Amino acid sequence: MGRTLTYPKLPFNTVNRHNDRATYDLSSIHSIINTTQVLHVSFNTGDSNNDNPFPAILPMIGAMGSFEYPSADINEPMDCYLHGYVSSRIMNLARAASASSPSPGVSTSTGTETGTETETTTENTKQGLPVCIAASKLDGLVLSLTPNSHSYNYRSAILHGYASLVTDPAEKLYAMRLMTDSVVAGRWAGTRVPPDGAEMASTAVLRVRVVGGSGKIRDGGVSDERKDSGDESVTGRVWTGVVPVWETFGEPVRDGDGRVGEVPGYLAEFVERRNAENRAYAVGAVRGSQEGDH
Amino acid sequence: MGRTLTYPKLPFNTVNRHNDRATYDLSSIHSIINTTQVLHVSFNTGDSNNDNPFPAILPMIGAMGSFEYPSADINEPMDCYLHGYVSSRIMNLARAASASSPSPGVSTSTGTETGTETETTTENTKQGLPVCIAASKLDGLVLSLTPNSHSYNYRSAILHGYASLVTDPAEKLYAMRLMTDSVVAGRWAGTRVPPDGAEMASTAVLRVRVVGGSGKIRDGGVSDERKDSGDESVTGRVWTGVVPVWETFGEPVRDGDGRVGEVPGYLAEFVERRNAENRAYAVGAVRGSQEGDH
Repeated sequence: MGRTLTYPKLPFNTVNRHNDRATYDLSSIHSIINTTQVLHVSFNTGDSNNDNPFPAILPMIGAMGSFEYPSADINEPMDCYLHGYVSSRIMNLARAASASSPSPGVSTSTGTETGTETETTTENTKQGLPVCIAASKLDGLVLSLTPNSHSYNYRSAILHGYASLVTDPAEKLYAMRLMTDSVVAGRWAGTRVPPDGAEMASTAVLRVRVVGGSGKIRDGGVSDERKDSGDESVTGRVWTGVVPVWETFGEPVRDGDGRVGEVPGYLAEFVERRNAENRAYAVGAVRGSQEGDH
Repeated sequence: MGRTLTYPKLPFNTVNRHNDRATYDLSSIHSIINTTQVLHVSFNTGDSNNDNPFPAILPMIGAMGSFEYPSADINEPMDCYLHGYVSSRIMNLARAASASSPSPGVSTSTGTETGTETETTTENTKQGLPVCIAASKLDGLVLSLTPNSHSYNYRSAILHGYASLVTDPAEKLYAMRLMTDSVVAGRWAGTRVPPDGAEMASTAVLRVRVVGGSGKIRDGGVSDERKDSGDESVTGRVWTGVVPVWETFGEPVRDGDGRVGEVPGYLAEFVERRNAENRAYAVGAVRGSQEGDH
């Protein structure tokens, strides 16, 4: 309470357009990341001379957490843990970047990619693969008199940081639980855990040391331009307003080999709570009741 | 009918993991792009020596189209037009890249960025800013006996291409209508159009010449591992199944200066049709009824 931590405004994360909608609050940014089921992670593959000038984007699952300070609040500094449809490419790039980056005080590893070295909190923050992480939530279609004034209600967050493979089994286990519970709160405890040795070995988790972040939030109603608002041939013909948009979780459908018939409490509550929150936010956003600026 | 165009498998767009879920069909990929309200666009800012090694990601609005062949079907080659919360950065980068890229047969422009030169179809395909465009749709949470077998039902598409500013007014108008109608089908005709001179000048549109694309689709139910399926202490305790997830469009809320009271037909139909389609797909995906592979 009363304490608001913000990300520093750096050249690569400062919002220039509509900067009245910008936020640098850790709490806002981390909350958007944590309630977004699919993150988009961008990185360079390093083969730009090989007829590939394109950065890559992967849709991934992720969540904010701190293994060193597990009780860290949402408004405190945290890492972003990632797991998902991870091609070996991003894992190999992260491993190579961790091994080869200049790291004062740590001798550069020369090809000993055995995956056994435990990374510590004293490592260089900039060791790892540079990544950009985006989370975007659409909250409404804002339909004005003319398409040029159309907009979206939305919340978006961007993080910049350095991704490394998590090698410490305790940290990996912490991250696996964090990410499972970010998909459905309480799910980890409702399943067969812990993972066995083969499962631990086959699972790759990335930890992103966040060095910058920014968010952007637009809510509220329609803004029309004076030239159209004063023209009755326009106002009498064009419908203006907002269509709220939100993510809906449907009735759970039993499948697979579990023999439990009734939907467990944690899952029923998750579906009910998330649907109510999502709908309330999108509908409330029309009146701009969520945040100050719009 | 009977004709299926596919994107070539290139080093930067070939799906390696779960390649049974991969698709290169233009039709599938373009459909995912066109029904995704927020695209994620990644590009490099070119100032990597300036303490910024990160690719950037922007959430943007976009749609597939062909100005040269407006009647092109969804399964035919198309460009991707982009518009959105466009910082001047991506526009400046695209303008600079178009001006400076090697372009056989076209003399390199030397600083005459007047915005008046009309780009033609004979331009070098590789002229422009290299971008990666991602569209991802979450269709369901797949909850198995152990978190390691958890998955998502989803559809994702990736495009690679070269972005240039659209300078021809006729093409810009085409793209503005295309993108407005991609947000709500029929909206363009229901508003005050065409844009006036000031609106045309202040609107920036990017055309991405697509050089590669890929998609990934996962549907179906839960896959449990034999070691868990045969363990009654696990199957008797863990609920398994799928939670369908889809994007819901709420009741339109009147706001702004339009004096039309009733929600117009095209908008009511759009909301109703999109909700029905989204829900039907997500619920149907549990049984894997949408596509062949899962």
